[in-house]
Amino acid sequence: MRTLKLVLAYDGTAYHGWQLQPNGVTVQHVLEEAIGRILGPHRTHVAGRTDAGVHALGQVASFRTGKTMDAATLLRALNAVLPEDVAVRSVEDVSNEFDPRRDARGKLYRYRIWTETTRPVLVRNQVWQVWGLDWEAIERAARLFEGTHDFSSFEGRHSTAAHCVRTLSRVAVLRTPPAEHEAWIEIEGNGFVKHMVRNIVGTLVEVGRGAHPPEWVNEVIAAKDREAAGQTAPSQGLTLVEVFY
Amino acid sequence: MRTLKLVLAYDGTAYHGWQLQPNGVTVQHVLEEAIGRILGPHRTHVAGRTDAGVHALGQVASFRTGKTMDAATLLRALNAVLPEDVAVRSVEDVSNEFDPRRDARGKLYRYRIWTETTRPVLVRNQVWQVWGLDWEAIERAARLFEGTHDFSSFEGRHSTAAHCVRTLSRVAVLRTPPAEHEAWIEIEGNGFVKHMVRNIVGTLVEVGRGAHPPEWVNEVIAAKDREAAGQTAPSQGLTLVEVFY
Repeated sequence: MRTLKLVLAYDGTAYHGWQLQPNGVTVQHVLEEAIGRILGPHRTHVAGRTDAGVHALGQVASFRTGKTMDAATLLRALNAVLPEDVAVRSVEDVSNEFDPRRDARGKLYRYRIWTETTRPVLVRNQVWQVWGLDWEAIERAARLFEGTHDFSSFEGRHSTAAHCVRTLSRVAVLRTPPAEHEAWIEIEGNGFVKHMVRNIVGTLVEVGRGAHPPEWVNEVIAAKDREAAGQTAPSQGLTLVEVFY
Repeated sequence: MRTLKLVLAYDGTAYHGWQLQPNGVTVQHVLEEAIGRILGPHRTHVAGRTDAGVHALGQVASFRTGKTMDAATLLRALNAVLPEDVAVRSVEDVSNEFDPRRDARGKLYRYRIWTETTRPVLVRNQVWQVWGLDWEAIERAARLFEGTHDFSSFEGRHSTAAHCVRTLSRVAVLRTPPAEHEAWIEIEGNGFVKHMVRNIVGTLVEVGRGAHPPEWVNEVIAAKDREAAGQTAPSQGLTLVEVFY
């Protein structure tokens, strides 16, 4: 038996999230179908279960197999059978102890906001359109999220996390990212509870709209109450950029 | 009677180009349908008829009308009824003499090339994936297109142009454009014959692949023969960025 690690990119628009489910096609479904066509049935494991509509540039999945096809051949074969909105970036042999979720030291998420009043026709499934925000206030508020906090106020319903203490090493606002008419909020941390990035972004946008001052973030964190935070930002603006090991 | 000038953005993926045609939905079709729902039937005119799959950030259209709805209200009304892959950026009253095609002093086109080996899942309908190109050679070749030339070697079949003499004021290679993993070729000129940008890009890519030296461009231009130039680059990489008046 050997264990293979896959790095994946996908456009989440057409999928009901990562995880297999009885109704609706998921990314895990099309990945396991592609593996199945090449190697026969296998069950995959994943670093982070993305929600419906969320994209990935560096999702990590793994599976154990008794098949001997070399990694480079499998990479080409998978990309040949996967739909055009899912791509395998790399395939490599790793230790049989590898667990993509448990072994992840951290993850980097990017949230893309479209800042123009004109509709984002080309990237409409990859951004949240919000204009007229006070980005200096957002930058000040973003810094208050950095560090170790109990993120209970940012935990989505039906979460299965045992607790909500996480450490964010970087909450950065990119006002001129490599994408026209956008601003990006990038969040890197050692772990994320359900909807955490989208709830942080929704809270930052309330600050940017002037509904609250930047320091309000400290109150929201301290409240440990989902009702205290802002709305959940829409899923299509979110991308899982990288998983660190 | 008054004349209204519209600046439009659209994702051309779902459309059979700009111009009305009996089979297939075109951008002109959905625009005239939207105008029709608000003001009744009107015929529009356009600056540049884009091909199927080609996008626009600054296409210009116009129509004459006896209706008195003010431009700002019409802008909002059009965006409310247009599909999400077509947006009106502005509406303004212009002289009744205005002809978006004849009056255009120039146009700026952008061609986006995806330079990574991994498939472009998020922008797959907006780029041409070609990796391993010699971009320094492409830059040298691009400069040879600048100036006034007879572009007969770059004219697509079934063109209706009387002649192919055009002036390109700028053929620029952006190797780190505001888009990750892409290189852009931007071409600005006083006019373009059918498929001219796509045929120039196809020729530049042949240089980038090392099939010909940059100076080959001079030979291709001098030949005045479509057979002399490179392949036509795929339509989805092309965007009409702006029309100048």
